[in-house]
Amino acid sequence: MPKNRQILLDSRPQGEASVSNFKLVSADTPALQDGQVLVRHRYLSLDPYMRGRMNDSKSYAQPQPLGQVMIGGTVGEVVESRHPKFAAGDQVVGMGGWQEYSVVDAGQPGAVRKVDTTQVPLSQYLGAVGMPGVTAWYGLVKIIEPKAGQTVVVSAASGAVGSAVGVLAKERGARAVGIAGGPDKCRYVTEELGFDACVDYKQHADAASLARALKQACPDGIDGHFENVGGMVLDAVLLRANAFSRIAVCGMISGYDGKPIPMAYPQLILTNRMRVEGFIVSEHMEVWPEALKELGTLVGSGRLRPRETIAQGLEAAPEAFLGLLKGRNFGKQLVQLA
Amino acid sequence: MPKNRQILLDSRPQGEASVSNFKLVSADTPALQDGQVLVRHRYLSLDPYMRGRMNDSKSYAQPQPLGQVMIGGTVGEVVESRHPKFAAGDQVVGMGGWQEYSVVDAGQPGAVRKVDTTQVPLSQYLGAVGMPGVTAWYGLVKIIEPKAGQTVVVSAASGAVGSAVGVLAKERGARAVGIAGGPDKCRYVTEELGFDACVDYKQHADAASLARALKQACPDGIDGHFENVGGMVLDAVLLRANAFSRIAVCGMISGYDGKPIPMAYPQLILTNRMRVEGFIVSEHMEVWPEALKELGTLVGSGRLRPRETIAQGLEAAPEAFLGLLKGRNFGKQLVQLA
Repeated sequence: MPKNRQILLDSRPQGEASVSNFKLVSADTPALQDGQVLVRHRYLSLDPYMRGRMNDSKSYAQPQPLGQVMIGGTVGEVVESRHPKFAAGDQVVGMGGWQEYSVVDAGQPGAVRKVDTTQVPLSQYLGAVGMPGVTAWYGLVKIIEPKAGQTVVVSAASGAVGSAVGVLAKERGARAVGIAGGPDKCRYVTEELGFDACVDYKQHADAASLARALKQACPDGIDGHFENVGGMVLDAVLLRANAFSRIAVCGMISGYDGKPIPMAYPQLILTNRMRVEGFIVSEHMEVWPEALKELGTLVGSGRLRPRETIAQGLEAAPEAFLGLLKGRNFGKQLVQLA
Repeated sequence: MPKNRQILLDSRPQGEASVSNFKLVSADTPALQDGQVLVRHRYLSLDPYMRGRMNDSKSYAQPQPLGQVMIGGTVGEVVESRHPKFAAGDQVVGMGGWQEYSVVDAGQPGAVRKVDTTQVPLSQYLGAVGMPGVTAWYGLVKIIEPKAGQTVVVSAASGAVGSAVGVLAKERGARAVGIAGGPDKCRYVTEELGFDACVDYKQHADAASLARALKQACPDGIDGHFENVGGMVLDAVLLRANAFSRIAVCGMISGYDGKPIPMAYPQLILTNRMRVEGFIVSEHMEVWPEALKELGTLVGSGRLRPRETIAQGLEAAPEAFLGLLKGRNFGKQLVQLA
């Protein structure tokens, strides 16, 4: 069996996460039991939720145990199978973790799934046609529920989730406005993704200034907002929110490293009769088939063209992950492992 | 026609409202036109929403115009009628404003409504069997949607809205926990209203301390919360909120006088997958008949025994209103006018 390099969580962050929280080790891959498959990972997905798992605090998920392989989505190829429904060469998506190989009980529901790469590139099953895409779909379709002509704003708009939110909103006849960091990301959001406008939050020192820019980008106010960031971005959106607007709270990455991110004007939830709703996509498995079908079609037809930032080699994963928390990636952050 | 004393909004508050914002005047009541009735007000309702109307800022309602009679709910008696469906002696509820008499176009929908005082005292049509009661009903039934065995918290629990929230929650098999200011109010909430527990927020200097008290009062966490106050109270509730809990945002009286009331931990909306929803009862007229029926039965049967604080005479209204904003009232704040 091949040698398997792995990254473990070695210590929990105090405040900001750092590379010293991770540890690279090498292990033998165990011999397969009946019903198992050995997957060689091609790509590892890096996602903001992982930061929460590094803490030992009450949250919706169990903390990542110390000394074990970091959790993470992976795509790859079956190299050996002792399960009748899988064969060497199958392309699969699963939760293989931060390592080069995984041994999977293939019969366990949700453990590993074959994917078709004729229309959709393999890596997209970690992005637009995977968990981030379904996250976008659920928040937009089930919480924001945009109507044609309404304005939908999404923060981290050039990212894996944000890009899908905007394109899905456009498909429903809404005006899509992004918030992103820097002119390159904003240009991509409008020119390649087809958003109607994009606001560069890095040009604004406070929520009032950002709110003025949003007023220009959203002349009819904001009817729906998909929040990935929190803090100043959320404050600015609230200042421009319309009556009966909806906010889907998917992430608050600006606070993941322990910084306080108070909401300055919660009274606007009342005066604008808003609905603010947090969600986690893994608790809504019932929408995955419908969502993946639409997302696969959008990617296959080229209407959704997600960007990827690809780090090379498992050893690059910690640095790439820390960059993701700071918004240094452009689009979906992946690590190529083979 | 009788002389009519009136209170006008004379100036807008800068920060805290004060008695100097109001002006007492005397006017003749105009002669009735066809279709009009003259109502002598028995009670005027004082409600927190009036503070918002005193500002000249964007909100859900038009600002109260300067130099005009303050808006307000009233109950009273028809003294003269030129409308076929009303007769002198009819007991009615309407929006007569801060004055002793009003002339009403009785045919206008919602302008004035006859009420039955055999089971329900007249003043209760301004409280539990009126706008405050329906407000409680809507937020509890339509937003919080409590299930039997769940825990529902309400702030300003001894007030006109809060008292009804708790009793309605108990009717649905939920555990009702109040937050109120001072031992007298807390005793009333548990002993007379039948809440399971009440926390005196005045015993707590910060949200962490209040949250510890809530932990004791809500051993299974908080599934639903009806917010009338905001600020520290809302922060403490969020710290004890369960997964999938709901917050109905009805008021944030702690910020009405212009004080900032940031929400300290909005990320809890995400990690607890909460729904936070603002509402205004006048936008949900469709629930009024069903709500008033249940509330009338609860008051008529004595299961809901609302307290009232009654100021005497129109000239006492400004001071009583300012006291309401500071929580000096006990139960529904009224002004007796005749």
